[in-house]
Amino acid sequence: MKNEKWITIEQAAKKWVLEAAKLLKDSFENTLTITYKSHIADLVTDMDKKVEQFFIQKIQESFPDHKVLGEEGYGDDVQSKSGVIWIIDPIDGTTNFVHQQSNFAISIGIYEDGVGILGIIFDVASGDFFFAKKGEGAFLNDVKLPMLENVALSEAVIGVNATWVGPNRRINHENVQSIVRKSRGTRSYGSAAIELAYVASGKIDAYLTMRLSPWDFAAGIILLNEVGGIATNADGKPIRLLEQNSILASKPGLHGEMLDHLLK
Amino acid sequence: MKNEKWITIEQAAKKWVLEAAKLLKDSFENTLTITYKSHIADLVTDMDKKVEQFFIQKIQESFPDHKVLGEEGYGDDVQSKSGVIWIIDPIDGTTNFVHQQSNFAISIGIYEDGVGILGIIFDVASGDFFFAKKGEGAFLNDVKLPMLENVALSEAVIGVNATWVGPNRRINHENVQSIVRKSRGTRSYGSAAIELAYVASGKIDAYLTMRLSPWDFAAGIILLNEVGGIATNADGKPIRLLEQNSILASKPGLHGEMLDHLLK
Repeated sequence: MKNEKWITIEQAAKKWVLEAAKLLKDSFENTLTITYKSHIADLVTDMDKKVEQFFIQKIQESFPDHKVLGEEGYGDDVQSKSGVIWIIDPIDGTTNFVHQQSNFAISIGIYEDGVGILGIIFDVASGDFFFAKKGEGAFLNDVKLPMLENVALSEAVIGVNATWVGPNRRINHENVQSIVRKSRGTRSYGSAAIELAYVASGKIDAYLTMRLSPWDFAAGIILLNEVGGIATNADGKPIRLLEQNSILASKPGLHGEMLDHLLK
Repeated sequence: MKNEKWITIEQAAKKWVLEAAKLLKDSFENTLTITYKSHIADLVTDMDKKVEQFFIQKIQESFPDHKVLGEEGYGDDVQSKSGVIWIIDPIDGTTNFVHQQSNFAISIGIYEDGVGILGIIFDVASGDFFFAKKGEGAFLNDVKLPMLENVALSEAVIGVNATWVGPNRRINHENVQSIVRKSRGTRSYGSAAIELAYVASGKIDAYLTMRLSPWDFAAGIILLNEVGGIATNADGKPIRLLEQNSILASKPGLHGEMLDHLLK
Protein backbone atom coordinates (compact mmCIF):
# COMPACT_ATOMS: atom_id res chain seq x y z
CA MET A 1 0.00 0.00 0.00
CA LYS A 2 2.96 2.26 -0.62
CA ASN A 3 1.50 3.61 -3.82
CA GLU A 4 0.85 7.30 -4.42
CA LYS A 5 -2.92 7.00 -4.13
CA TRP A 6 -2.78 5.76 -0.55
CA ILE A 7 -0.08 8.19 0.51
CA THR A 8 -2.36 11.01 -0.66
CA ILE A 9 -5.34 9.53 1.19
CA GLU A 10 -3.27 9.04 4.36
CA GLN A 11 -2.02 12.62 4.36
CA ALA A 12 -5.50 14.00 3.76
CA ALA A 13 -7.12 11.82 6.43
CA LYS A 14 -4.56 12.76 9.10
CA LYS A 15 -4.84 16.45 8.27
CA TRP A 16 -8.63 16.44 8.41
CA VAL A 17 -8.68 14.55 11.71
CA LEU A 18 -6.49 17.21 13.31
CA GLU A 19 -8.70 19.95 11.87
CA ALA A 20 -11.84 18.21 13.12
CA ALA A 21 -10.27 17.81 16.57
CA LYS A 22 -9.73 21.54 16.68
CA LEU A 23 -13.42 22.10 15.91
CA LEU A 24 -14.27 19.82 18.85
CA LYS A 25 -11.90 21.47 21.28
CA ASP A 26 -13.07 24.92 20.31
CA SER A 27 -16.66 23.83 20.95
CA PHE A 28 -15.98 23.34 24.67
CA GLU A 29 -15.97 27.08 25.00
CA ASN A 30 -19.46 27.28 23.55
CA THR A 31 -22.61 25.87 25.01
CA LEU A 32 -23.40 22.46 23.59
CA THR A 33 -26.85 21.99 22.17
CA ILE A 34 -27.76 18.45 23.01
CA THR A 35 -30.52 16.45 21.39
CA TYR A 36 -31.53 12.90 22.11
CA LYS A 37 -31.47 9.77 20.00
CA SER A 38 -33.83 6.87 20.48
CA HIS A 39 -31.92 5.58 23.49
CA ILE A 40 -31.24 8.05 26.24
CA ALA A 41 -27.67 6.73 26.65
CA ASP A 42 -26.89 7.91 23.17
CA LEU A 43 -26.36 11.61 23.48
CA VAL A 44 -25.81 13.47 20.28
CA THR A 45 -24.54 16.96 20.06
CA ASP A 46 -24.54 19.40 17.25
CA MET A 47 -20.79 18.80 17.05
CA ASP A 48 -21.33 15.17 16.02
CA LYS A 49 -23.27 16.35 13.01
CA LYS A 50 -20.96 19.24 12.24
CA VAL A 51 -17.82 17.10 12.26
CA GLU A 52 -19.36 14.37 10.11
CA GLN A 53 -20.43 16.96 7.55
CA PHE A 54 -16.93 18.45 7.65
CA PHE A 55 -15.42 15.09 6.69
CA ILE A 56 -17.99 14.38 3.99
CA GLN A 57 -17.41 17.72 2.34
CA LYS A 58 -13.62 17.24 2.36
CA ILE A 59 -13.85 13.69 1.02
CA GLN A 60 -16.30 14.60 -1.73
CA GLU A 61 -14.08 17.47 -2.86
CA SER A 62 -10.83 15.46 -2.92
CA PHE A 63 -12.00 11.93 -3.64
CA PRO A 64 -15.35 12.14 -5.43
CA ASP A 65 -15.41 8.39 -6.18
CA HIS A 66 -15.05 7.41 -2.49
CA LYS A 67 -18.06 6.52 -0.39
CA VAL A 68 -18.69 7.55 3.22
CA LEU A 69 -20.47 5.60 5.92
CA GLY A 70 -20.98 7.75 9.02
CA GLU A 71 -22.77 7.47 12.31
CA GLU A 72 -24.91 10.52 11.75
CA GLY A 73 -26.18 9.29 8.39
CA TYR A 74 -25.10 12.21 6.23
CA GLY A 75 -22.92 9.92 4.10
CA ASP A 76 -23.85 7.43 1.42
CA ASP A 77 -26.30 4.56 1.60
CA VAL A 78 -23.52 1.97 1.53
CA GLN A 79 -24.82 -1.49 0.59
CA SER A 80 -21.68 -3.02 -0.91
CA LYS A 81 -18.04 -3.23 0.15
CA SER A 82 -16.70 -2.46 -3.32
CA GLY A 83 -14.54 0.60 -3.89
CA VAL A 84 -13.04 2.88 -1.26
CA ILE A 85 -15.24 3.47 1.79
CA TRP A 86 -14.51 5.84 4.65
CA ILE A 87 -16.24 4.62 7.82
CA ILE A 88 -16.43 7.53 10.22
CA ASP A 89 -17.42 8.19 13.79
CA PRO A 90 -17.09 11.93 14.29
CA ILE A 91 -17.29 11.57 18.11
CA ASP A 92 -17.01 8.10 19.55
CA GLY A 93 -17.95 8.37 23.22
CA THR A 94 -20.49 11.15 22.96
CA THR A 95 -21.59 10.86 26.58
CA ASN A 96 -17.97 11.35 27.66
CA PHE A 97 -17.66 14.27 25.25
CA VAL A 98 -20.62 15.97 26.91
CA HIS A 99 -19.92 15.03 30.55
CA GLN A 100 -16.14 14.89 30.70
CA GLN A 101 -14.69 16.67 27.70
CA SER A 102 -12.29 13.73 27.65
CA ASN A 103 -12.22 10.02 26.72
CA PHE A 104 -13.83 10.59 23.31
CA ALA A 105 -12.29 9.98 19.91
CA ILE A 106 -12.53 10.63 16.21
CA SER A 107 -12.48 7.23 14.51
CA ILE A 108 -11.88 6.68 10.80
CA GLY A 109 -11.38 3.37 9.02
CA ILE A 110 -10.77 3.42 5.27
CA TYR A 111 -11.47 0.22 3.36
CA GLU A 112 -10.94 -0.83 -0.25
CA ASP A 113 -13.14 -3.65 -1.51
CA GLY A 114 -13.75 -4.68 2.09
CA VAL A 115 -10.07 -4.71 3.10
CA GLY A 116 -8.98 -2.31 5.87
CA ILE A 117 -6.17 -0.07 4.61
CA LEU A 118 -5.97 2.95 6.95
CA GLY A 119 -7.17 3.33 10.54
CA ILE A 120 -7.07 6.46 12.68
CA ILE A 121 -8.31 6.83 16.26
CA PHE A 122 -7.59 10.21 17.79
CA ASP A 123 -8.22 10.57 21.52
CA VAL A 124 -8.70 14.30 21.25
CA ALA A 125 -8.37 15.32 24.90
CA SER A 126 -5.31 13.23 25.72
CA GLY A 127 -3.68 13.88 22.37
CA ASP A 128 -3.07 10.17 21.73
CA PHE A 129 -3.08 9.69 17.95
CA PHE A 130 -3.39 6.04 16.93
CA PHE A 131 -2.72 5.23 13.28
CA ALA A 132 -2.35 2.05 11.25
CA LYS A 133 -1.69 1.29 7.61
CA LYS A 134 -2.07 -2.19 6.18
CA GLY A 135 1.29 -3.92 6.02
CA GLU A 136 3.18 -1.00 7.56
CA GLY A 137 2.22 -1.36 11.23
CA ALA A 138 0.34 0.58 13.88
CA PHE A 139 1.61 3.70 15.60
CA LEU A 140 0.87 5.77 18.70
CA ASN A 141 2.02 9.35 18.23
CA ASP A 142 4.33 8.18 15.44
CA VAL A 143 6.00 5.53 17.62
CA LYS A 144 5.54 2.05 16.14
CA LEU A 145 3.56 -0.25 18.42
CA PRO A 146 5.10 -3.66 19.15
CA MET A 147 3.38 -6.91 18.21
CA LEU A 148 1.04 -8.07 20.98
CA GLU A 149 2.28 -10.91 23.14
CA ASN A 150 0.09 -13.54 24.67
CA VAL A 151 -1.17 -13.17 28.24
CA ALA A 152 -3.23 -15.49 30.42
CA LEU A 153 -6.72 -14.35 31.44
CA SER A 154 -5.62 -14.51 35.09
CA GLU A 155 -3.08 -11.76 34.34
CA ALA A 156 -5.25 -9.79 31.91
CA VAL A 157 -7.13 -6.51 32.28
CA ILE A 158 -10.37 -6.74 30.30
CA GLY A 159 -12.41 -3.87 28.90
CA VAL A 160 -16.05 -4.80 29.52
CA ASN A 161 -19.04 -2.70 30.47
CA ALA A 162 -21.11 -3.59 33.53
CA THR A 163 -24.15 -3.91 31.25
CA TRP A 164 -22.95 -7.28 29.96
CA VAL A 165 -22.14 -8.61 33.43
CA GLY A 166 -25.79 -8.53 34.50
CA PRO A 167 -28.75 -10.21 32.78
CA ASN A 168 -29.16 -8.90 29.24
CA ARG A 169 -30.62 -10.06 25.95
CA ARG A 170 -27.38 -10.38 24.01
CA ILE A 171 -25.10 -12.73 25.92
CA ASN A 172 -25.22 -15.24 28.75
CA HIS A 173 -24.09 -12.94 31.54
CA GLU A 174 -22.87 -15.86 33.65
CA ASN A 175 -20.21 -16.54 31.02
CA VAL A 176 -19.15 -12.90 31.16
CA GLN A 177 -19.07 -13.10 34.96
CA SER A 178 -16.74 -16.08 34.78
CA ILE A 179 -14.35 -14.03 32.62
CA VAL A 180 -14.54 -11.13 35.08
CA ARG A 181 -13.82 -13.40 38.05
CA LYS A 182 -10.88 -15.08 36.36
CA SER A 183 -9.29 -11.84 35.10
CA ARG A 184 -6.91 -9.53 36.92
CA GLY A 185 -9.42 -6.69 36.60
CA THR A 186 -11.81 -4.85 34.32
CA ARG A 187 -12.11 -1.37 32.91
CA SER A 188 -14.76 0.57 31.02
CA TYR A 189 -14.11 3.89 29.30
CA GLY A 190 -17.32 4.51 27.34
CA SER A 191 -15.65 4.73 23.92
CA ALA A 192 -15.33 1.58 21.81
CA ALA A 193 -12.76 3.21 19.55
CA ILE A 194 -10.53 4.10 22.49
CA GLU A 195 -10.98 0.65 24.01
CA LEU A 196 -9.95 -1.03 20.73
CA ALA A 197 -6.97 1.32 20.46
CA TYR A 198 -6.07 0.41 24.06
CA VAL A 199 -6.05 -3.28 23.13
CA ALA A 200 -3.88 -2.56 20.10
CA SER A 201 -1.41 -0.61 22.24
CA GLY A 202 -1.40 -3.06 25.18
CA LYS A 203 -3.04 -0.63 27.65
CA ILE A 204 -5.69 -3.28 28.21
CA ASP A 205 -5.49 -6.90 27.11
CA ALA A 206 -8.95 -7.47 25.63
CA TYR A 207 -12.27 -5.74 24.97
CA LEU A 208 -15.64 -7.43 24.92
CA THR A 209 -18.87 -5.74 23.91
CA MET A 210 -22.14 -6.89 22.44
CA ARG A 211 -23.37 -4.18 20.12
CA LEU A 212 -21.16 -2.04 17.92
CA SER A 213 -21.86 -0.34 14.63
CA PRO A 214 -19.33 -0.24 11.77
CA TRP A 215 -18.13 3.27 12.68
CA ASP A 216 -17.38 2.09 16.23
CA PHE A 217 -14.95 -0.66 15.20
CA ALA A 218 -13.85 0.07 11.59
CA ALA A 219 -10.61 1.82 12.56
CA GLY A 220 -9.90 -0.31 15.62
CA ILE A 221 -9.78 -3.62 13.79
CA ILE A 222 -7.28 -2.20 11.28
CA LEU A 223 -5.04 -1.20 14.21
CA LEU A 224 -5.42 -4.66 15.73
CA ASN A 225 -4.53 -6.43 12.48
CA GLU A 226 -1.20 -4.63 12.37
CA VAL A 227 -0.10 -5.74 15.86
CA GLY A 228 -1.30 -9.34 15.71
CA GLY A 229 -4.46 -8.79 17.73
CA ILE A 230 -7.57 -10.82 17.01
CA ALA A 231 -11.04 -9.36 16.56
CA THR A 232 -14.12 -11.48 15.97
CA ASN A 233 -17.73 -11.58 17.06
CA ALA A 234 -18.23 -12.67 20.66
CA ASP A 235 -18.97 -16.18 19.39
CA GLY A 236 -15.71 -16.30 17.42
CA LYS A 237 -17.26 -15.73 14.00
CA PRO A 238 -15.93 -13.14 11.54
CA ILE A 239 -17.01 -9.53 11.88
CA ARG A 240 -19.41 -8.34 9.17
CA LEU A 241 -18.08 -4.94 8.18
CA LEU A 242 -21.31 -3.14 7.29
CA GLU A 243 -23.51 -4.51 10.08
CA GLN A 244 -23.91 -4.31 13.85
CA ASN A 245 -21.62 -6.80 15.57
CA SER A 246 -20.66 -8.09 18.96
CA ILE A 247 -16.87 -7.77 19.30
CA LEU A 248 -14.24 -9.77 21.14
CA ALA A 249 -10.90 -8.09 20.50
CA SER A 250 -7.79 -9.26 22.28
CA LYS A 251 -4.24 -10.45 22.38
CA PRO A 252 -3.81 -13.67 20.40
CA GLY A 253 -3.89 -16.55 22.94
CA LEU A 254 -6.20 -14.72 25.33
CA HIS A 255 -8.82 -14.62 22.57
CA GLY A 256 -9.17 -18.38 22.65
CA GLU A 257 -9.22 -18.51 26.44
CA MET A 258 -12.04 -15.95 26.57
CA LEU A 259 -13.97 -17.77 23.84
CA ASP A 260 -13.79 -20.93 25.97
CA HIS A 261 -15.74 -19.04 28.67
CA LEU A 262 -18.17 -17.42 26.23
CA LEU A 263 -19.06 -20.62 24.35
CA LYS A 264 -19.74 -22.71 27.48
CA MET B 1 -8.36 27.29 57.73
CA LYS B 2 -6.74 30.46 56.47
CA ASN B 3 -4.14 30.45 59.20
CA GLU B 4 -0.43 30.41 58.47
CA LYS B 5 0.05 26.83 59.55
CA TRP B 6 -2.28 25.46 56.91
CA ILE B 7 -0.99 27.76 54.19
CA THR B 8 2.49 26.36 54.86
CA ILE B 9 1.20 22.79 54.78
CA GLU B 10 -0.73 23.44 51.55
CA GLN B 11 2.28 24.90 49.78
CA ALA B 12 4.53 22.06 50.88
CA ALA B 13 2.01 19.36 49.91
CA LYS B 14 1.43 20.80 46.45
CA LYS B 15 5.16 21.18 45.83
CA TRP B 16 5.95 17.64 46.93
CA VAL B 17 3.16 16.15 44.82
CA LEU B 18 4.58 17.81 41.71
CA GLU B 19 8.07 16.58 42.61
CA ALA B 20 6.77 13.04 43.19
CA ALA B 21 4.93 13.15 39.86
CA LYS B 22 8.21 13.94 38.15
CA LEU B 23 9.79 10.88 39.78
CA LEU B 24 6.95 8.78 38.40
CA LYS B 25 7.12 10.18 34.90
CA ASP B 26 10.88 9.78 34.78
CA SER B 27 10.48 6.15 35.79
CA PHE B 28 8.68 5.30 32.56
CA GLU B 29 12.00 5.51 30.83
CA ASN B 30 13.44 2.89 33.16
CA THR B 31 12.37 -0.69 33.47
CA LEU B 32 9.87 -1.16 36.23
CA THR B 33 10.66 -3.83 38.76
CA ILE B 34 7.34 -5.33 39.68
CA THR B 35 6.66 -7.41 42.76
CA TYR B 36 3.39 -8.92 43.83
CA LYS B 37 1.18 -8.33 46.82
CA SER B 38 -1.09 -10.96 48.27
CA HIS B 39 -3.70 -10.48 45.57
CA ILE B 40 -2.49 -10.69 42.03
CA ALA B 41 -4.63 -7.72 41.00
CA ASP B 42 -2.61 -5.52 43.29
CA LEU B 43 0.60 -4.82 41.45
CA VAL B 44 3.23 -2.92 43.32
CA THR B 45 6.23 -1.37 41.76
CA ASP B 46 9.36 -0.10 43.26
CA MET B 47 8.06 3.39 42.44
CA ASP B 48 5.18 2.95 44.90
CA LYS B 49 7.66 2.43 47.68
CA LYS B 50 10.07 5.09 46.50
CA VAL B 51 7.38 7.79 46.28
CA GLU B 52 5.92 6.94 49.69
CA GLN B 53 9.36 7.15 51.26
CA PHE B 54 9.92 10.47 49.47
CA PHE B 55 6.81 11.92 51.11
CA ILE B 56 7.60 10.49 54.54
CA GLN B 57 11.08 11.98 54.50
CA LYS B 58 9.79 15.40 53.43
CA ILE B 59 7.01 15.39 56.04
CA GLN B 60 9.29 14.27 58.86
CA GLU B 61 11.79 17.00 58.00
CA SER B 62 9.24 19.82 57.79
CA PHE B 63 6.49 18.71 60.15
CA PRO B 64 8.00 16.31 62.69
CA ASP B 65 4.83 16.21 64.80
CA HIS B 66 2.63 15.07 61.88
CA LYS B 67 1.81 11.41 61.37
CA VAL B 68 1.74 9.55 58.06
CA LEU B 69 -0.53 6.70 57.03
CA GLY B 70 0.56 5.27 53.70
CA GLU B 71 -0.37 2.33 51.52
CA GLU B 72 3.11 0.85 51.51
CA GLY B 73 3.35 0.86 55.28
CA TYR B 74 6.48 2.95 55.70
CA GLY B 75 4.56 5.54 57.72
CA ASP B 76 3.37 5.48 61.31
CA ASP B 77 1.22 2.89 63.04
CA VAL B 78 -1.77 5.24 63.22
CA GLN B 79 -4.35 4.09 65.78
CA SER B 80 -5.98 7.41 66.64
CA LYS B 81 -7.33 10.33 64.64
CA SER B 82 -5.81 12.95 66.92
CA GLY B 83 -3.29 15.42 65.55
CA VAL B 84 -2.39 16.02 61.92
CA ILE B 85 -2.33 12.89 59.76
CA TRP B 86 -1.24 12.69 56.13
CA ILE B 87 -3.01 9.80 54.42
CA ILE B 88 -1.05 8.97 51.29
CA ASP B 89 -1.40 6.75 48.27
CA PRO B 90 1.82 7.20 46.28
CA ILE B 91 0.29 5.54 43.19
CA ASP B 92 -3.44 4.94 43.18
CA GLY B 93 -4.18 2.69 40.20
CA THR B 94 -0.94 0.72 40.19
CA THR B 95 -2.13 -1.71 37.51
CA ASN B 96 -2.85 1.24 35.22
CA PHE B 97 0.53 2.73 36.08
CA VAL B 98 2.22 -0.47 34.95
CA HIS B 99 0.04 -1.32 31.94
CA GLN B 100 -0.99 2.09 30.65
CA GLN B 101 1.28 4.74 32.09
CA SER B 102 -1.95 6.69 32.49
CA ASN B 103 -5.05 6.76 34.69
CA PHE B 104 -3.07 6.64 37.94
CA ALA B 105 -2.89 9.31 40.63
CA ILE B 106 -1.02 10.55 43.66
CA SER B 107 -3.62 10.95 46.42
CA ILE B 108 -3.06 12.86 49.65
CA GLY B 109 -5.63 13.69 52.29
CA ILE B 110 -4.50 15.68 55.32
CA TYR B 111 -6.69 15.48 58.42
CA GLU B 112 -6.60 17.25 61.79
CA ASP B 113 -8.28 15.43 64.65
CA GLY B 114 -10.25 13.40 62.13
CA VAL B 115 -11.44 16.40 60.09
CA GLY B 116 -10.38 16.59 56.44
CA ILE B 117 -8.54 19.85 55.76
CA LEU B 118 -6.56 19.42 52.51
CA GLY B 119 -7.11 17.00 49.65
CA ILE B 120 -4.95 16.56 46.57
CA ILE B 121 -5.49 14.08 43.73
CA PHE B 122 -3.05 14.47 40.86
CA ASP B 123 -3.78 12.48 37.70
CA VAL B 124 -0.14 12.49 36.66
CA ALA B 125 -0.47 11.48 33.01
CA SER B 126 -3.35 13.80 32.11
CA GLY B 127 -2.03 16.63 34.26
CA ASP B 128 -5.37 17.10 36.02
CA PHE B 129 -4.58 18.49 39.48
CA PHE B 130 -7.54 18.27 41.86
CA PHE B 131 -7.26 20.20 45.11
CA ALA B 132 -9.60 21.03 47.96
CA LYS B 133 -9.26 22.96 51.22
CA LYS B 134 -11.91 22.81 53.87
CA GLY B 135 -14.21 25.83 53.61
CA GLU B 136 -12.45 27.24 50.57
CA GLY B 137 -13.75 24.94 47.83
CA ALA B 138 -12.42 22.37 45.39
CA PHE B 139 -10.39 23.15 42.30
CA LEU B 140 -9.33 21.47 39.07
CA ASN B 141 -6.14 23.04 37.74
CA ASP B 142 -6.83 26.13 39.86
CA VAL B 143 -10.35 26.59 38.45
CA LYS B 144 -12.97 26.41 41.19
CA LEU B 145 -15.37 23.51 40.74
CA PRO B 146 -19.08 24.33 40.92
CA MET B 147 -21.37 22.82 43.55
CA LEU B 148 -22.80 19.52 42.33
CA GLU B 149 -26.39 19.57 41.16
CA ASN B 150 -28.81 16.73 41.54
CA VAL B 151 -29.34 14.26 38.71
CA ALA B 152 -31.74 11.33 38.37
CA LEU B 153 -30.23 7.84 38.19
CA SER B 154 -31.78 7.44 34.73
CA GLU B 155 -29.59 10.30 33.51
CA ALA B 156 -26.52 9.42 35.55
CA VAL B 157 -23.20 7.84 34.57
CA ILE B 158 -22.04 5.60 37.42
CA GLY B 159 -18.49 4.52 38.19
CA VAL B 160 -18.73 0.86 39.17
CA ASN B 161 -16.42 -2.07 38.51
CA ALA B 162 -17.78 -5.23 36.88
CA THR B 163 -16.64 -7.19 39.95
CA TRP B 164 -19.60 -5.89 41.97
CA VAL B 165 -22.13 -6.60 39.21
CA GLY B 166 -21.59 -10.34 39.44
CA PRO B 167 -21.92 -12.57 42.51
CA ASN B 168 -19.47 -11.48 45.21
CA ARG B 169 -19.13 -11.67 48.99
CA ARG B 170 -19.54 -7.98 49.73
CA ILE B 171 -22.84 -6.80 48.26
CA ASN B 172 -26.01 -8.25 46.80
CA HIS B 173 -25.06 -8.05 43.13
CA GLU B 174 -28.69 -8.00 42.03
CA ASN B 175 -29.06 -4.62 43.71
CA VAL B 176 -26.01 -3.35 41.87
CA GLN B 177 -27.43 -4.75 38.62
CA SER B 178 -30.63 -2.81 39.18
CA ILE B 179 -28.59 0.39 39.49
CA VAL B 180 -26.66 -0.45 36.31
CA ARG B 181 -29.87 -1.13 34.38
CA LYS B 182 -31.54 2.08 35.54
CA SER B 183 -28.50 4.29 34.88
CA ARG B 184 -27.51 5.99 31.64
CA GLY B 185 -24.24 4.06 31.65
CA THR B 186 -21.28 2.91 33.69
CA ARG B 187 -17.55 3.48 33.66
CA SER B 188 -14.57 1.95 35.41
CA TYR B 189 -11.10 3.49 35.42
CA GLY B 190 -9.20 1.35 37.90
CA SER B 191 -8.26 4.21 40.25
CA ALA B 192 -10.53 5.03 43.19
CA ALA B 193 -8.88 8.40 43.70
CA ILE B 194 -9.52 9.41 40.09
CA GLU B 195 -13.07 8.11 40.23
CA LEU B 196 -13.78 10.14 43.39
CA ALA B 197 -12.21 13.21 41.75
CA TYR B 198 -14.41 12.59 38.71
CA VAL B 199 -17.51 12.62 40.91
CA ALA B 200 -16.36 15.85 42.56
CA SER B 201 -15.81 17.46 39.16
CA GLY B 202 -19.02 16.14 37.55
CA LYS B 203 -17.23 13.92 35.01
CA ILE B 204 -19.23 11.02 36.40
CA ASP B 205 -22.25 11.27 38.67
CA ALA B 206 -21.50 8.62 41.29
CA TYR B 207 -18.97 5.98 42.28
CA LEU B 208 -19.74 2.74 44.06
CA THR B 209 -17.14 0.31 45.32
CA MET B 210 -16.99 -2.24 48.07
CA ARG B 211 -13.47 -2.25 49.45
CA LEU B 212 -11.30 0.83 49.82
CA SER B 213 -8.50 1.58 52.23
CA PRO B 214 -8.06 5.00 53.86
CA TRP B 215 -5.39 6.09 51.33
CA ASP B 216 -7.80 5.32 48.47
CA PHE B 217 -10.53 7.69 49.65
CA ALA B 218 -8.94 10.14 52.13
CA ALA B 219 -8.37 12.91 49.57
CA GLY B 220 -11.49 12.21 47.52
CA ILE B 221 -13.96 12.72 50.33
CA ILE B 222 -12.40 16.10 51.15
CA LEU B 223 -12.93 17.13 47.52
CA LEU B 224 -16.52 15.89 47.65
CA ASN B 225 -17.30 17.78 50.85
CA GLU B 226 -16.36 21.05 49.19
CA VAL B 227 -18.76 20.63 46.25
CA GLY B 228 -21.76 19.27 48.12
CA GLY B 229 -21.19 15.64 47.19
CA ILE B 230 -22.12 12.87 49.58
CA ALA B 231 -19.85 9.99 50.53
CA THR B 232 -20.91 7.18 52.86
CA ASN B 233 -20.54 3.44 53.11
CA ALA B 234 -22.61 1.51 50.58
CA ASP B 235 -25.26 1.02 53.26
CA GLY B 236 -25.47 4.74 53.95
CA LYS B 237 -23.50 4.68 57.19
CA PRO B 238 -20.61 7.08 57.92
CA ILE B 239 -17.16 6.27 56.59
CA ARG B 240 -14.63 5.19 59.26
CA LEU B 241 -11.50 7.10 58.37
CA LEU B 242 -8.84 4.64 59.51
CA GLU B 243 -10.51 1.41 58.29
CA GLN B 244 -11.43 -0.36 55.09
CA ASN B 245 -14.80 0.86 53.82
CA SER B 246 -17.30 0.34 51.07
CA ILE B 247 -17.96 3.71 49.43
CA LEU B 248 -21.00 5.25 47.78
CA ALA B 249 -19.99 8.72 46.59
CA SER B 250 -22.34 10.79 44.50
CA LYS B 251 -24.27 13.91 43.72
CA PRO B 252 -26.68 14.77 46.53
CA GLY B 253 -30.12 13.46 45.47
CA LEU B 254 -28.70 10.60 43.45
CA HIS B 255 -27.12 9.25 46.64
CA GLY B 256 -30.53 8.56 48.13
CA GLU B 257 -31.88 7.07 44.90
CA MET B 258 -28.93 4.67 44.71
CA LEU B 259 -29.28 3.74 48.39
CA ASP B 260 -32.90 2.81 47.71
CA HIS B 261 -31.60 0.18 45.29
CA LEU B 262 -28.79 -0.99 47.55
CA LEU B 263 -30.94 -1.38 50.68
CA LYS B 264 -33.70 -3.38 48.97
